[in-house]
Amino acid sequence: MPAVEPLGQTTAGPGPLLRATTPPALASPQRHLLGIEGLSRDTALALLSKTAEYYEIGRSAVRKVPVLTGKTIINLFFESSTRTRTSFELAGKRLGADVVNLGGSSSSVSKGESLLDTVATVDAMHADAIVIRHTASGAPHYVASRIRAPVVNAGDGMHEHPTQALLDAFTIRRRLGRDLDGVVVAICGDILHSRVARSNVLLLNLLGAEVRLAGPRTLLPHDPEALGARTYDRVEPALEGADAVMMLRIQQERLGAALIPSLREYSREFGLSRARLNLAKPGAIVMHPGPLNRGVEVSDDVADGTTSAILDQVEAGVALRMAVLQYCAAGT
Amino acid sequence: MPAVEPLGQTTAGPGPLLRATTPPALASPQRHLLGIEGLSRDTALALLSKTAEYYEIGRSAVRKVPVLTGKTIINLFFESSTRTRTSFELAGKRLGADVVNLGGSSSSVSKGESLLDTVATVDAMHADAIVIRHTASGAPHYVASRIRAPVVNAGDGMHEHPTQALLDAFTIRRRLGRDLDGVVVAICGDILHSRVARSNVLLLNLLGAEVRLAGPRTLLPHDPEALGARTYDRVEPALEGADAVMMLRIQQERLGAALIPSLREYSREFGLSRARLNLAKPGAIVMHPGPLNRGVEVSDDVADGTTSAILDQVEAGVALRMAVLQYCAAGT
Amino acid sequence: MPAVEPLGQTTAGPGPLLRATTPPALASPQRHLLGIEGLSRDTALALLSKTAEYYEIGRSAVRKVPVLTGKTIINLFFESSTRTRTSFELAGKRLGADVVNLGGSSSSVSKGESLLDTVATVDAMHADAIVIRHTASGAPHYVASRIRAPVVNAGDGMHEHPTQALLDAFTIRRRLGRDLDGVVVAICGDILHSRVARSNVLLLNLLGAEVRLAGPRTLLPHDPEALGARTYDRVEPALEGADAVMMLRIQQERLGAALIPSLREYSREFGLSRARLNLAKPGAIVMHPGPLNRGVEVSDDVADGTTSAILDQVEAGVALRMAVLQYCAAGT
Repeated sequence: MPAVEPLGQTTAGPGPLLRATTPPALASPQRHLLGIEGLSRDTALALLSKTAEYYEIGRSAVRKVPVLTGKTIINLFFESSTRTRTSFELAGKRLGADVVNLGGSSSSVSKGESLLDTVATVDAMHADAIVIRHTASGAPHYVASRIRAPVVNAGDGMHEHPTQALLDAFTIRRRLGRDLDGVVVAICGDILHSRVARSNVLLLNLLGAEVRLAGPRTLLPHDPEALGARTYDRVEPALEGADAVMMLRIQQERLGAALIPSLREYSREFGLSRARLNLAKPGAIVMHPGPLNRGVEVSDDVADGTTSAILDQVEAGVALRMAVLQYCAAGT
Repeated sequence: MPAVEPLGQTTAGPGPLLRATTPPALASPQRHLLGIEGLSRDTALALLSKTAEYYEIGRSAVRKVPVLTGKTIINLFFESSTRTRTSFELAGKRLGADVVNLGGSSSSVSKGESLLDTVATVDAMHADAIVIRHTASGAPHYVASRIRAPVVNAGDGMHEHPTQALLDAFTIRRRLGRDLDGVVVAICGDILHSRVARSNVLLLNLLGAEVRLAGPRTLLPHDPEALGARTYDRVEPALEGADAVMMLRIQQERLGAALIPSLREYSREFGLSRARLNLAKPGAIVMHPGPLNRGVEVSDDVADGTTSAILDQVEAGVALRMAVLQYCAAGT
Repeated sequence: MPAVEPLGQTTAGPGPLLRATTPPALASPQRHLLGIEGLSRDTALALLSKTAEYYEIGRSAVRKVPVLTGKTIINLFFESSTRTRTSFELAGKRLGADVVNLGGSSSSVSKGESLLDTVATVDAMHADAIVIRHTASGAPHYVASRIRAPVVNAGDGMHEHPTQALLDAFTIRRRLGRDLDGVVVAICGDILHSRVARSNVLLLNLLGAEVRLAGPRTLLPHDPEALGARTYDRVEPALEGADAVMMLRIQQERLGAALIPSLREYSREFGLSRARLNLAKPGAIVMHPGPLNRGVEVSDDVADGTTSAILDQVEAGVALRMAVLQYCAAGT
């Protein structure tokens, strides 16, 4: 597990909020999903297999499976989100759980309470899983060992976004019609700051794929080989013969930090046009975690083309999160 | 259908986000409710008839009817709203659907994603109906032809607000105890910018009522006869002998635009006092879509009087939206 | 009942929004929970007894009891809140009710509608209970007599917070293992502005406990004996021999008003350290309504110590609110 960064939310360094009364026995051992790091190949494959079931149920007339009836899922989002939060909310509801959303401007997250106290409070309300998104890398890991409820990492700082990596792997497998062994995946954009890239590299390696990373030199990781991927400071060589191309969202704040020159130049050098996509294998699929900056990371004809898998990723996202919530909250 | 205005959310003009995989077959033909324009008299009457059933169920001890169990309703509000959003949320839940709210400050609607990409994303999560409110006229129509899910227009710019018109028609019928043929309805206020007025004129005409429009000359439509209504730049002649009086909410931004002089003068010239209401038929009902500016559009004694139907409109709203969601999401 | 303060939301003084049609008969007499004032000892004890049942159910594998199936609970929060709103939301959902949250930045509460009109609108949608938090003291009382739905006060201005007092009483009873007769409770902090303190004094007196109030002289009530409690301008004598110590949250806005010198000085004079806690009875429990300012009201070692009951309060909160919602919405 990577070093957990200090969260700096309390001056006095919070100790664990001990429960004075005996907590009730857990129905099953506590199962978190904190990152791809630490996830076994078997668990990953079991989650993808369960996702395939839920993917079909999502396409049926009745989209509900009552495996979490009587359970509570709490979405605790310290960072704003539409698609990830909605995806988890739908996943929980389709499993029959009660789902409660916390976070945003109307919550007392802004009242100066420490992260751990907020999470411990939610835990004391008997959540069966707490889904956490936080700006601080390591936040879900930090709280997971100090509460009763299973924790699902929905994105922590620049660290991991494990459910995104799992839904991406599912999408690649499904669209290519084969498992990931030997599949070549090019990930392009701001690799350095991307939790999506990080989790994807870890999972794709675990499942036997070859990963290439491309982006401006300022936005490449300093130690790519430790990560298990080759890096390129141009897009073209990374794309050659690739089976899948994953374009990352460029964050506006990188512009202010002088890490990329301008959106126009970024797009010209690193955006995915039809001509560039032609360097990849015929039929190579195009992916993006969204939300998409059209005409910046991906041209419209590519985003809307027949090999685009962008909406498949969204569809897979709900199914994958159903599998993850069941794994964590029901232990099955 | 009126010309759809360009939405201006993408510079590069988005093409349709094509699905590369075959979408699942629809259980029934896709049924939108985009506006009163295009709605048949038969469908309108069927919706009002179903509303009457749900109106009674709303008054019973158990307010649920499980016709949408296993279905998903998504409220996608790009404009803030309390009563319309709550009304749709309650309607969906009372039909047994899973309801998810999107929009507002904590969503990534602000992250520069195009309208169509946001809606296509929600669609890919398998919504059985998407309820859309948007500041741009024509937004629901624009997306409806490009996604799988049925779309319900919950108010688009200055264009239409069809569920408001339907609940208003239901309220008039119920309070007067007869159908709308020959009923005289006066609509007063800012007609020009009002989607409520527009949808009401269309529906009331469809159902055989006579519509009169009254307001300051600056706030009357330029082409009222095409709309099918007579206009008045004073309230009094419009009220004479009317069966129902519908007062519109005055938007503060009209003041800044110099379209009305001041709230005090607006109220004196166009507000509904007891004396003015006496010009209408004895027992004429008073309506307002809310939220009400007390003492501006309607005096307190009129708003709280025995002929006020303002809260009946709210009550009818939930029942009507149950009928609409069932129509769109279950096709029955 | 205390004098209801004018709410000042309408210039013209709203009369009751009369319903012109006959409202449906109520299944049972309307049962509000507006405050501890007016609550009988028997009802309080019945609620605590029901809470004990729900407390155990919260610790079981299936946390649902379908006593409010088909009912609607509306959370109407005019003041931001995380724990209270979430606690009520979970309580309603675990009873099988449909729960809708209103309030915050995306609602039209800001559109200038009067409080009564907003509540009457929600009432017309057939809520089986409306949970109200408002900055104005007396707001829930003001609306309760003017609508059909039962009203639960979730905190009104500086007046009452009855569910907090009830969950606190439950926590003391459970942790001490005996009823409240003769129990000594010290409440410390900003007593003057605290609705938590006010409701606790009333309930603890009703149940036979002895209450002591301690805080800076500027933050003590002017008429403590009328309240039924002794006051102290130092913490130490209030703590001596106490069975339970309840620390109140210090509001930042008291600093601006020059009522306390600085957080550091406040903490040194009135914060609960281990040394101060040793003045209380051995094993005395420590309580705080949250969110906690660590190192200000309570030191970390005390907050996280074995006698801390802070998380027990949170756990009890959901169970107590289940009991209250059942009492109000089902009348049982």
